[in-house]
Amino acid sequence: MKTQLELARAGTVSAAMQSAASAERVPVSQVVAELAAGRAVLPANPAHTALAPGIVGRAFRTKVNANIGRSTERSDDETELAKLKVALAAGADCVMDLSVGPNLASLRKAMLAQCAAPFGTVPIYEAVSRTGGAVEAFDPEVLFSVIAEQAEQGVDFMTLHGGILKAHVPLALKRLAGIVSRGGAILAAWMMEHRQENPLYTRFDEVLAVCQAHDVTISLGDGLRPGCQADASDEAQFAELDTLGELVARCRARGVQVMVEGPGHVPFGQIQMNVERATRVCAGAPFYVLGPVVTDVAPGYDHITSCIGATAAAYYGAALLCYVTPAEHLGLPTEKEVHEGLMAYRIAAHAADVARNLPGARDWDDAMTRARIKFDWDGQFKLALDGDHARKRFRQTSPTFAEALDHCSMCGAEFCAMRTSQKLAQKLSG
Amino acid sequence: MKTQLELARAGTVSAAMQSAASAERVPVSQVVAELAAGRAVLPANPAHTALAPGIVGRAFRTKVNANIGRSTERSDDETELAKLKVALAAGADCVMDLSVGPNLASLRKAMLAQCAAPFGTVPIYEAVSRTGGAVEAFDPEVLFSVIAEQAEQGVDFMTLHGGILKAHVPLALKRLAGIVSRGGAILAAWMMEHRQENPLYTRFDEVLAVCQAHDVTISLGDGLRPGCQADASDEAQFAELDTLGELVARCRARGVQVMVEGPGHVPFGQIQMNVERATRVCAGAPFYVLGPVVTDVAPGYDHITSCIGATAAAYYGAALLCYVTPAEHLGLPTEKEVHEGLMAYRIAAHAADVARNLPGARDWDDAMTRARIKFDWDGQFKLALDGDHARKRFRQTSPTFAEALDHCSMCGAEFCAMRTSQKLAQKLSG
Repeated sequence: MKTQLELARAGTVSAAMQSAASAERVPVSQVVAELAAGRAVLPANPAHTALAPGIVGRAFRTKVNANIGRSTERSDDETELAKLKVALAAGADCVMDLSVGPNLASLRKAMLAQCAAPFGTVPIYEAVSRTGGAVEAFDPEVLFSVIAEQAEQGVDFMTLHGGILKAHVPLALKRLAGIVSRGGAILAAWMMEHRQENPLYTRFDEVLAVCQAHDVTISLGDGLRPGCQADASDEAQFAELDTLGELVARCRARGVQVMVEGPGHVPFGQIQMNVERATRVCAGAPFYVLGPVVTDVAPGYDHITSCIGATAAAYYGAALLCYVTPAEHLGLPTEKEVHEGLMAYRIAAHAADVARNLPGARDWDDAMTRARIKFDWDGQFKLALDGDHARKRFRQTSPTFAEALDHCSMCGAEFCAMRTSQKLAQKLSG
Repeated sequence: MKTQLELARAGTVSAAMQSAASAERVPVSQVVAELAAGRAVLPANPAHTALAPGIVGRAFRTKVNANIGRSTERSDDETELAKLKVALAAGADCVMDLSVGPNLASLRKAMLAQCAAPFGTVPIYEAVSRTGGAVEAFDPEVLFSVIAEQAEQGVDFMTLHGGILKAHVPLALKRLAGIVSRGGAILAAWMMEHRQENPLYTRFDEVLAVCQAHDVTISLGDGLRPGCQADASDEAQFAELDTLGELVARCRARGVQVMVEGPGHVPFGQIQMNVERATRVCAGAPFYVLGPVVTDVAPGYDHITSCIGATAAAYYGAALLCYVTPAEHLGLPTEKEVHEGLMAYRIAAHAADVARNLPGARDWDDAMTRARIKFDWDGQFKLALDGDHARKRFRQTSPTFAEALDHCSMCGAEFCAMRTSQKLAQKLSG
């Protein structure tokens, strides 16, 4: 079998490429060119039969990922399947199941059947879950089995922390917050305990063989992403990044699609540098950021602290944004929080697309403005990112549209600037 | 009487300057220098006896303003006084009363008595309210009376739209959204109707005399701020900005403190240019932005769409951020929405201060990180921007602290990266 990368290099147009091109409203030749150059990925495992393929890359609409999944202490399959529905309804472009605990394959099977969006996992979570859940029991052999099984099952992309090396660990342990990536922490503990190099690095060729065979897109995890403002852009982070750049080249050499994960927690003013450096070191591979969170002081509002960073990241070069919910740093998100996280991140993604003049992006804003100046409330709610929410809020103050035909209750009729402005324009043109 | 600007120029240290310096934890000489250069303002009308003065300028902590006030159709004095309390409790650095309708002086008197933060108004709202509320009845004489009365009453700063000129109006009416500033629309309609220039411009010396006598800080309003992405950075906006630059010089020549208001709705990628241009044209006068909103498609979430822009604006040079609530574009905000707006904007202001390395700004984040890595939940909630909110959310998933002594329910104990990382650090150092 050939991966989408190999097909694109050969100039072959796949059904997935056609579908992505039509979703993006671009010529398929652009999809082929971006894939062939490695600047975009089209995560589409043929075994994921429910998939409607979507493309992730800088030339296209900025995408949003939603993380769901049960922890060892909270939630169950039914709840997480409900969250999957909420995430897709709220416009998630891809979904990752981060579940840990028993019977992950059956939950994943149900999710894959219901998920038309590209579906991702972090196989080390299942590997640790299978060996009893204790970090100390982590077994690389189990991890390689899990990767193969998940690839067969239809997972479209996998986070693999191949870039954290033994030499990086002491750099990270000097930090204020240490290692905050679950996968990174597990691998670091194993490397130090066994005095061996990261198996995902030393046996990366095995990983590549599996991913090539099933066209699984590798999302190179940043196990040493900073977990607070103080740790951002440090030696540990950039040492791992250099290794990720090396792995990108190895993925491409094997025809495996690859994207790269980025921080984390980063002060607003360091985001441009981070995105540009990652893009350079990783030779233009699509950059997939978590947030970044731009201040650590607002637990309960981390969908906001991070969507600020996500907008900047997407403007400066990220292609995929991993949402953060209001529950971040406090607990596992509820369905409502999944929805809120997606709204914040769809704002970030779209605002970045408008800012970078992505063709057609501002049309949505302009249509909203046209409805707004006509006081066409119904039209505004139909166009709105979250029409139900906006309609409900509007009705709370203005129970009927009739009383708001040429103004709203915020300023009142006499003080409505748009009303005054429009009357003036009519008068001057009449 | 001398204004704080005149005092600073004379090298006189006022009580207000002392108080501002101690609030900012900077030497008072820095406060004096910034004020004397016009790069900061200290809005402190001596008649506002309840005031605890605060300084607005680039050398200091980024400040947040909360707009409250009744419209002609909604709310009442009691509700708006309740919102004032909410705004101050949520950390508003200054408050503007945008009320319209009858009996504004008595509401303002009550607000001034209860408001320790600098208090601002938009006098044209009261002027129009007094002449019956119809824009057509706007009378410049009434406006000048209102300015004088409000100055006597103790208003610390006033938005005055002196920069919108007759020649600018046709430029703005060509736009998709036209004029969206209430003050701007009223003045534009009056200028076109009477074929006369903006009285706030032609009689600016009268304004200056009043503001000098009462040390009212002028906030030069941007009557032609863009109201949608499509209209940002256009000829109308920048024509008005040039006039504002001229008025800044006239304020300074008369010893009147002045800041400048900015857009509005601006694509993320144009914010740096906008802030830098305004700062240049207005010779470093403190820049006071509304938002900016970075996409028009998300009514109901405009505290988010705009705090993204506000973070960028503050990072690139704005000194004061006017909050936007989730009710923006839909209705008058409730108390809860006033709180939500302030939380979003305090995040924006602080994130910008961290990013621009304002001395001491990151200490708050670092303290939070130290509490976080110790799993000191109580400590985190005490430090949090909104501790009650964070505590409530945490307890929803983890009813007791006891079960979260070394992990939280988001990942569970076995998968807690911080727990693994810390055990590893202890092991390696032990």
